[in-house]
Amino acid sequence: MAIPEAMDLAVSASRAARGLSRPNPPVGAVILDADQSLVGVGHTQAAGGPHAEVVALREAGERARGGTAVVTLEPCAHTGRTGPCTQALLAAGVRNLVYAVADPNPVAAGGAADLAAAGVEVSVSGTEQVADGPLREWLFRTRTGRPYVTAKLATSLDGRVAAPDGSSQWITGPQAREHSHRVRAELDAIIVGTGTALADDPALTSRTPTGELTERQPGRVVVGRREIPATARLRGPGGRYVQVRSHDPAEALRACGDAANVQVEGGPQLLGAFLTAGLVDRVEAYLAPTLLGAGRSAIEAPAVTTLADRHDFALESVITLGADLLLTLCRG
Amino acid sequence: MAIPEAMDLAVSASRAARGLSRPNPPVGAVILDADQSLVGVGHTQAAGGPHAEVVALREAGERARGGTAVVTLEPCAHTGRTGPCTQALLAAGVRNLVYAVADPNPVAAGGAADLAAAGVEVSVSGTEQVADGPLREWLFRTRTGRPYVTAKLATSLDGRVAAPDGSSQWITGPQAREHSHRVRAELDAIIVGTGTALADDPALTSRTPTGELTERQPGRVVVGRREIPATARLRGPGGRYVQVRSHDPAEALRACGDAANVQVEGGPQLLGAFLTAGLVDRVEAYLAPTLLGAGRSAIEAPAVTTLADRHDFALESVITLGADLLLTLCRG
Repeated sequence: MAIPEAMDLAVSASRAARGLSRPNPPVGAVILDADQSLVGVGHTQAAGGPHAEVVALREAGERARGGTAVVTLEPCAHTGRTGPCTQALLAAGVRNLVYAVADPNPVAAGGAADLAAAGVEVSVSGTEQVADGPLREWLFRTRTGRPYVTAKLATSLDGRVAAPDGSSQWITGPQAREHSHRVRAELDAIIVGTGTALADDPALTSRTPTGELTERQPGRVVVGRREIPATARLRGPGGRYVQVRSHDPAEALRACGDAANVQVEGGPQLLGAFLTAGLVDRVEAYLAPTLLGAGRSAIEAPAVTTLADRHDFALESVITLGADLLLTLCRG
Repeated sequence: MAIPEAMDLAVSASRAARGLSRPNPPVGAVILDADQSLVGVGHTQAAGGPHAEVVALREAGERARGGTAVVTLEPCAHTGRTGPCTQALLAAGVRNLVYAVADPNPVAAGGAADLAAAGVEVSVSGTEQVADGPLREWLFRTRTGRPYVTAKLATSLDGRVAAPDGSSQWITGPQAREHSHRVRAELDAIIVGTGTALADDPALTSRTPTGELTERQPGRVVVGRREIPATARLRGPGGRYVQVRSHDPAEALRACGDAANVQVEGGPQLLGAFLTAGLVDRVEAYLAPTLLGAGRSAIEAPAVTTLADRHDFALESVITLGADLLLTLCRG
């Protein structure tokens, strides 16, 4: 297996760690033997469990000797709850290391230099693919100290999220809704306003198409002063529940703890507050091919007066989901 | 040249007749000689001028003898301002005819049968490509007696067309605006409300990127009771200008005369009236990757109360235009 292929596989493996590895980065690792054959694949386990390299090395066993480790993030050099990965790679007799992204964390960094000093051949590959891909949110959090925030919209083509009578189920179709549940399983936390919590009584859980809870569940943060009844679905089975009795987006983010990948699902006022505060990093817009012509718009930001107040993004991808579209945009 | 290729070429040629041939259909024709080599291409000229077949036959001259005519619409059998095309094809000695769409007009139909009776080998190919392509609006007009109506939107991702202070130039970028000018050259008429006419003072002309008027100009219809000043740009150079002193979309369409391809460019109330009247057949939505959070939405339909009042379309295409997207949707 060539190195770019091995890195693609490591990237795929790392996706399974998203929403699971927090506060550790969701890393993927692949081990090739001395003949470049695939002998191990792994991803970071839940906090306290083994890192990606260790999982992949266990699968490879003796076949790692003289081989190559391909990892999405520079192997850590520090001993946290688990021993350093550099030591595990040396003990396994790995001769080559390829990594995509250098560890920006000063405590864990230096792994590549340590391995090079010990005689391992070290190279870098796939940096952009990983930095803009599965490690984006963790890198952002490490760099800025706050989560990477996605605003999720599900609207008609004219930007409406509900009709004047409040009816909103469903503007988008079943494939779009299923997709958003798969995305939820990769999130660390979901934020909604009390208005949305009271009006829609959402569970904010990640569910399979047949309605069962998936293994990983995002934390649930409700923003606002109104009481949420004890019987509300979002206080039921699912991720950690917390209410922030304020309308300050920064406070809502602090309530997400060590989360790196956070999604704001509405309502319009809360999305407006995040937008105005400059706290929207990505937009995931599910667009239904329908025109409504009345009702609430997806975002309400009362401070906006003129066109120059707009917030520009860059289109990253467009996919179709049944009859609907999903547009992903990031801060330019 | 194979027949499918020749039909593709005929379709391309026919696009140049859009906005020009009214009230005749925008038809394209290709002539292949007896060895299947390309010897002529043509499209319908302005009303009173020659039809596509005649233009292509003139180019082919003697080389048409024993050859094949490939046309997007069944050749006409009647004598209008020009002689019947069937006669021209027979006189040129064409041996094979391939057409895409049968002529739905009872006066002009029967051309294929006449040619078959005269010994020409007749076959059909590319029907869907043409019926859903350059002949769509003309076929619709012929079948229903009213123009095919496109609602044009140019909005932020949250469906806004202007900020609260009225600023709206420009939400979409230069490539999107240039594209909409190219589309205008293919339109028979553009409809706007008096509000848009007075607020934006648009010329509603088709212009080149350097600002010059293109050869073909759509008619301009203003809907509403307010006076439009004599100095308004849309009373200046460009297509025919007419004001409809009513808010009835059906009346606005009648004012478009024999137009087949009509675009409604706003404002929101007028688009809402067309939507509510069931008179939107296609939506062309230019979407900018920006969030505004306040200001006017693209469509205002006061009669809408609940989600079931929405108007569903089917997505036909998505293209990028610089940073923007153009979504084309048609009635499902």
